[in-house]
Amino acid sequence: MRILLTIAELRAARAELLQRDATATLGLVPTMGALHEGHLSLIRAAKKRCRFVAVSIFVNPLQFGPSEDFSRYPRTFDEDCTLLLQEGVDLVFAPAAEEMVPANATTFIEVGGIGDRLDGRSRPGHFRGVTTIVGKLFHVIAPHAAFFGQKDAAQVAVLRAMVRDLNFDLELVVCPTVRESDGLALSSRNRYLSAEERTQALALFRALRSVASLSAEEKDAKVLQEHLRSCLEIAEGLRVDYAEVVHPRTLEAITTTNGGALVAAAVWVGKTRLIDNILLPLGNTP
Amino acid sequence: MRILLTIAELRAARAELLQRDATATLGLVPTMGALHEGHLSLIRAAKKRCRFVAVSIFVNPLQFGPSEDFSRYPRTFDEDCTLLLQEGVDLVFAPAAEEMVPANATTFIEVGGIGDRLDGRSRPGHFRGVTTIVGKLFHVIAPHAAFFGQKDAAQVAVLRAMVRDLNFDLELVVCPTVRESDGLALSSRNRYLSAEERTQALALFRALRSVASLSAEEKDAKVLQEHLRSCLEIAEGLRVDYAEVVHPRTLEAITTTNGGALVAAAVWVGKTRLIDNILLPLGNTP
Repeated sequence: MRILLTIAELRAARAELLQRDATATLGLVPTMGALHEGHLSLIRAAKKRCRFVAVSIFVNPLQFGPSEDFSRYPRTFDEDCTLLLQEGVDLVFAPAAEEMVPANATTFIEVGGIGDRLDGRSRPGHFRGVTTIVGKLFHVIAPHAAFFGQKDAAQVAVLRAMVRDLNFDLELVVCPTVRESDGLALSSRNRYLSAEERTQALALFRALRSVASLSAEEKDAKVLQEHLRSCLEIAEGLRVDYAEVVHPRTLEAITTTNGGALVAAAVWVGKTRLIDNILLPLGNTP
Repeated sequence: MRILLTIAELRAARAELLQRDATATLGLVPTMGALHEGHLSLIRAAKKRCRFVAVSIFVNPLQFGPSEDFSRYPRTFDEDCTLLLQEGVDLVFAPAAEEMVPANATTFIEVGGIGDRLDGRSRPGHFRGVTTIVGKLFHVIAPHAAFFGQKDAAQVAVLRAMVRDLNFDLELVVCPTVRESDGLALSSRNRYLSAEERTQALALFRALRSVASLSAEEKDAKVLQEHLRSCLEIAEGLRVDYAEVVHPRTLEAITTTNGGALVAAAVWVGKTRLIDNILLPLGNTP
């Protein structure tokens, strides 16, 4: 496993790796480090699909708002590298902030519409930061496939739109959310939770499951959305950032879930903002 | 020479071309058609530098404002292809508008700062249209080098910034402006000019040359800029869109031309907007 800190080093290492075999493919798993089983599931999916696997570790300053947790975001580089070595990763790209975001850079990639919904509405500029840096990573690493978790449903929708609209020549692979045995979706931010908050956080997935149960009978998206909000706010007493039942690709409001739906919520547990979601399949009209 | 109308066809043709020789390079000359000697000089530069050459012909709707000349922009596809065949071009990419700008696309590449100066100030949204489509062409054609004319000085500055900021893995090559024997910079829009306007249009280069002469003695950018404007407006009676002496890379105002300068102007000749520019070299302080 090679660890590369600069763009030039990464490009040289990539070229060396792939020149051995002209038909070899490279998979990329972009991360912000603080790796957990969710990341490892992406790496395993990449290893199944591609001959070589690159993982980027970069806490992207552009995707954090001024009052968000950029400075205290967990950084666990040594532990991350130990895990990546165990998984058989080929390249680790861990650039410094100045390498990826030089002071004079003024170019952004922005997905309009989708990028302003769900997390994009709650966190202005967030997805512009994500798409700009992911676009740069695609140019630097030139992967044949890139792997993202369904846990970040809005991010997945935004990146799908970016790849399609700008004709990036790669496959975007979305892998299922990985959960603890009690249902909590894995997230690097779970480290912020106290024991008590950890218990409260379970309410998020409980509410999503309740919507899924109800959706077997109820196909009205607005009714389901109201049910989701009331589960979170009234039954569970959580502060809701958003709670929506929307189209999984466009993140737009829908009237019925018969065509499939994304049920997504962001809530505050203490000072920690957590997100989770489930996909409702194409419904059988009763 | 192969003419490809869709992204899928272009990608297949590119792969076929380059698989013959793994070390071969591909040069791209992006155009809006209506080809003239300026375009041909770019193609010849590309042929010198790269094993294969691709030319795109696409009148990009995103870079025209609502009251601009998109619908009447000259389209001379058959003549263009005859010229490209003579030049020994390998691939011609001539997509339909829907192929490059599908109705549901909402993603843009935008260069802040530089993109809002000179033509970017006069033509809001123009460079966002240019960068988005050029970025897409880079992803579709994956050239090793791309060739642009210095005639479009602001475009060159914007694209340099885009390539640098987003780490596109290609070389951007800028070729000198090609002029008629009387000095008029070649432009597809020269076709719009009547005989009388064609004579008036010479005033643009005359004014630029006058600034160049003066700049041998005078290094104050503001004085030179005022001289340029007064040449165009008062001496030549042209309606000026912009007339500036700026930094050639950032397009920002400068105080002295000792570090080199871009002298650029856009003027209206009848209903036709023409642009031209000259570069002042690093000056010897007198």
